[in-house]
Amino acid sequence: MDLATGANGGTAEGETLITWQAPPLKFGMGATREIAYELSRAGVRSVLLVTDPTLAALGLPARVAKSIEQDGIAVTVFDRALVEPTDASCAEAARELAHLDVDGYIGLGGGSAIDTAKMINLLHSHPGRAVRDYLNKPIGGGVSVPGPLKPLIAVPTTAGSGSECTAMVALGVTGLGVKTGISDIRLRPALALVDPLNTVTLPAAVTASSGYDVLTHACESYTARPYDRRPAYRTPGERPLYIGANPISDIWAEEALRLVGRYLRRAVLNPHDLEARAGMSRAATFAGLGFGNAGTHIPHACAYPIAGLVREYRPPGYQVGHAMVPHGSAVVSTAAAAFAFTYPTAPERHLRAAELLGANLAGVTAANGADALPAALTALVADTGGPAGPAEFGFTRQDLPALVEGALKQQRLLVCCPRDVADHDLRRILAASLAG
Amino acid sequence: MDLATGANGGTAEGETLITWQAPPLKFGMGATREIAYELSRAGVRSVLLVTDPTLAALGLPARVAKSIEQDGIAVTVFDRALVEPTDASCAEAARELAHLDVDGYIGLGGGSAIDTAKMINLLHSHPGRAVRDYLNKPIGGGVSVPGPLKPLIAVPTTAGSGSECTAMVALGVTGLGVKTGISDIRLRPALALVDPLNTVTLPAAVTASSGYDVLTHACESYTARPYDRRPAYRTPGERPLYIGANPISDIWAEEALRLVGRYLRRAVLNPHDLEARAGMSRAATFAGLGFGNAGTHIPHACAYPIAGLVREYRPPGYQVGHAMVPHGSAVVSTAAAAFAFTYPTAPERHLRAAELLGANLAGVTAANGADALPAALTALVADTGGPAGPAEFGFTRQDLPALVEGALKQQRLLVCCPRDVADHDLRRILAASLAG
Repeated sequence: MDLATGANGGTAEGETLITWQAPPLKFGMGATREIAYELSRAGVRSVLLVTDPTLAALGLPARVAKSIEQDGIAVTVFDRALVEPTDASCAEAARELAHLDVDGYIGLGGGSAIDTAKMINLLHSHPGRAVRDYLNKPIGGGVSVPGPLKPLIAVPTTAGSGSECTAMVALGVTGLGVKTGISDIRLRPALALVDPLNTVTLPAAVTASSGYDVLTHACESYTARPYDRRPAYRTPGERPLYIGANPISDIWAEEALRLVGRYLRRAVLNPHDLEARAGMSRAATFAGLGFGNAGTHIPHACAYPIAGLVREYRPPGYQVGHAMVPHGSAVVSTAAAAFAFTYPTAPERHLRAAELLGANLAGVTAANGADALPAALTALVADTGGPAGPAEFGFTRQDLPALVEGALKQQRLLVCCPRDVADHDLRRILAASLAG
Repeated sequence: MDLATGANGGTAEGETLITWQAPPLKFGMGATREIAYELSRAGVRSVLLVTDPTLAALGLPARVAKSIEQDGIAVTVFDRALVEPTDASCAEAARELAHLDVDGYIGLGGGSAIDTAKMINLLHSHPGRAVRDYLNKPIGGGVSVPGPLKPLIAVPTTAGSGSECTAMVALGVTGLGVKTGISDIRLRPALALVDPLNTVTLPAAVTASSGYDVLTHACESYTARPYDRRPAYRTPGERPLYIGANPISDIWAEEALRLVGRYLRRAVLNPHDLEARAGMSRAATFAGLGFGNAGTHIPHACAYPIAGLVREYRPPGYQVGHAMVPHGSAVVSTAAAAFAFTYPTAPERHLRAAELLGANLAGVTAANGADALPAALTALVADTGGPAGPAEFGFTRQDLPALVEGALKQQRLLVCCPRDVADHDLRRILAASLAG
C-alpha cells in the first residue's frame, strides 16, 4: 500500500503493469476466400454482413456473400452502413434488423462499416439499452458491455482505422455536433481478416485519408504519456483500455511508421502498386495493435469536433450525400501543431518518428529538432494531396471556441497526452493549424 | 486453382497468408497480485494451481493461493509437476486429481508446470482420451482437441519456454526415449500473466538454461523457412500452427534477440539485476509470440532426443531426483552447428541475428559471415556457463545413430528448416556439436 497515493499495491514510482490484447489475425493477398472456413470454425451458421453502399456498388459484398452461401452458411447483407456512423444510424440499423436471427457478424468495409457491425452485434446481443448508455462519459453513460457478444469477423477494405484490431467504435452523436466512442474489451473482433487485395479499388483520396489515420495512430500512441509515468491504479478494474505508450505498443508503432513512410505515397499515387497496398494494410493493422492498447491524444481529440461541426464540406473521392470530413483528414489536419506542442516531453521519440517516416536528421539534435516531425508530416500530407489544415473544411477563427470545447470533451483521449492540456493549449494548436 | 499444385486458390508462387494469435498479456513487476482479479473476470470460482516441488519449497505457490482465497475463490494446489514432464507424469496427475471439480487452472512455474497444467486441463475437460492420442504423429495419434478447455492462466517463473503464449506442450514419452509435443490452438492460455519478480529466485544455471531456450526460439523462428516459400495449402484446415518465418514473427524475434543480447549475461551473473530480469521476461514472452506461430527447427528437433536419451547427467541448479538435460541447454548445444548449416539460405538474416545479439560485423559480408551467428551464440553460452556441446551431458559418437533417429522423428519441426534436412545432415551437425 503506497501511502502517498492510496494505491493498492502500486508504488510512488507509478504504474508498473502493461495490459495488451490482439485479435487473431489472418493476413495476406486472397485471405477473403477463407471467410466461410473461419465462420464455420467459429460455429456460425447464419451471418449478417454489414457493408456500405459504395462497396455494394463495386460488387465485393455480393461476391463474399456468394462464397459464404456456397459453404452452406446463410447470409443477410445490410449495405447501408453510414460513412462516419452516428448513434442514430446504428440504432436505426439495429432496429430495422431486429427480426434477424443470426449467430455471427461480418464487418466488411472501412472503419465505418466495421464499427456499425460492432454496434449491431452489441445492440442485438443485449437488447434494452440505447447506444448513448454505452458512449464514453461525459457524453454518454459509460455503461460496460453486460456480457459476451457473438463472433464478429472484421474484413477491412481500407488501410486505415485499425478497427479490425481494436476494442472500440467511434460514433457521431446526433444533434450534439460531436463524435465520441465506446471502448470495451468485448467489442474486439473474433478475427481480423485482412486482405490487401480488397483495398485496390480505393480512390486515391480515400487511400490518402485512411493512410493519415494510420499515420496519426502510430505517431500519437508512440508519443502518448508512458504507462509507467501515470499514477498506479487503485484497483485492476480501474485500469483503462488505453494505458499509454509501452514497450509492446512501441514495437507496433515503430513498424507502422516505417511502413507508412515507405508505402503511403506509393499507394496513393499508384493504386495498383500491390506491394504498397500490402504494406499499408500491414501498417494499418500494426498501428491498430499499438494504439488500440496505448491510446491516442490531441489530433484525435481535435478530429472529433472537426468532424462533428462540419457544415458544407464534401470530400473528393467519397460518395456520400452529406457534408463530412473523412476521419483521417480531420485527424491529420492538426497533427503538425500538436506534435510541436508535445515535442519537449520526449524529443527522442519525436525525432525517431520523423526518422522512421524517412526524414533526414543530419545535424538535428534534441535542442533544434522540434520541427522535424511536423515537417515530415506536412511533407507526407502535401505529397499525397491532403489538407493543409482545418480551413480546407470550411472552418475559420470564429469556430475556435466550439472546436476547443468539443476537443476538451475527449478527456478519455487527452489523458494520454504526454503533457497536461488546457483549453488555451488546444486553442493555440487549432489556431496554428487553421493558419496552415 | 493452381494447376501445378492443385492448390485451392493458392498460386505457383506459394502460400500467401499469415495466421497469428496471441493470448491477452498482463506484464510487469507485481502482476502476480492481480491473479484473483483475473480469475474472477474469467468467471472462475474454484481453481487448480499446478506448480513444482522446488517452487513450493520457496513458498510462492502458497502465497499466491492465499491471495486467491482471500478473494473468495477456492484453490487446490498440486505441487508435484515433473520438471521435464512426460505423458505418464501428466496422465498420473490427471488421474490423481480426477475427483476435483474446478472451473479454471493456473500453471505457476517454468514451462514444465505450465505444460502440466495445460495437459490436466485437456485430460479433465475431455475424459476418455489418453495423452498419446493427442501427441504429434508419428509418435502419437495427432488427434485434435475435441472442444473448448477451461480458462488457464499461465504465470511463468522462468524467462524461458514462452509456454505462457503458445498453443503447445512438450512432453517426454515414457519408454521411448524421445520427446514430442501437442499443438492445438485450444491449448493457448486464456491469459499470460508475466511478473519478472517471480524470476528473481532462479539459480544462475536455471536462468542461463531458460535464457538459451529464448535465444534459440528467436534464432530458429527468425531463420525458419518463410511462410511464402512453401507450397500453398490445399485447404485452410491444412495450414499448420507453425507457418514459418513471417513479418509478424520477425518483429517479435528481432526484439527478443535484442533483449537477450543486452540482458542474458546480466541476469545470469547478477540475479538481482531487476532491469535484466524484466528484460529477459519480456524476451521470453516476445519470443513465444514469434516462434509460437512461426515454428522452430534443427536445434529443437535435436534437443528432443538429447533430453530423451540422457543417461546419468544431473544438471547444476535443478533440484530433481532423476537424470535430465534442461531443455534450453539441450537446444543450445547444437545451435552453433545448426546455424552454420542454414547460413546459405539467408545470410542477411543470420548476420542480422548476430548483430542483434551484439556482434561486431565490421568487415563482415554475406560471403565471409557464416561464422558470425555461431560465434555470437558460442560466446554468449560460454560467458553464462553453458554447455560447449552434448558431450557435456555424457553423449559420445556411439550415440550419434540414436540421436539422429530421434531428431528425424521431429518432422513437425524439421519442415520449418529453411533447407531440406537429411539424416546425414543431422549426423554432421550433431557430430560437430559433440566435438565442441
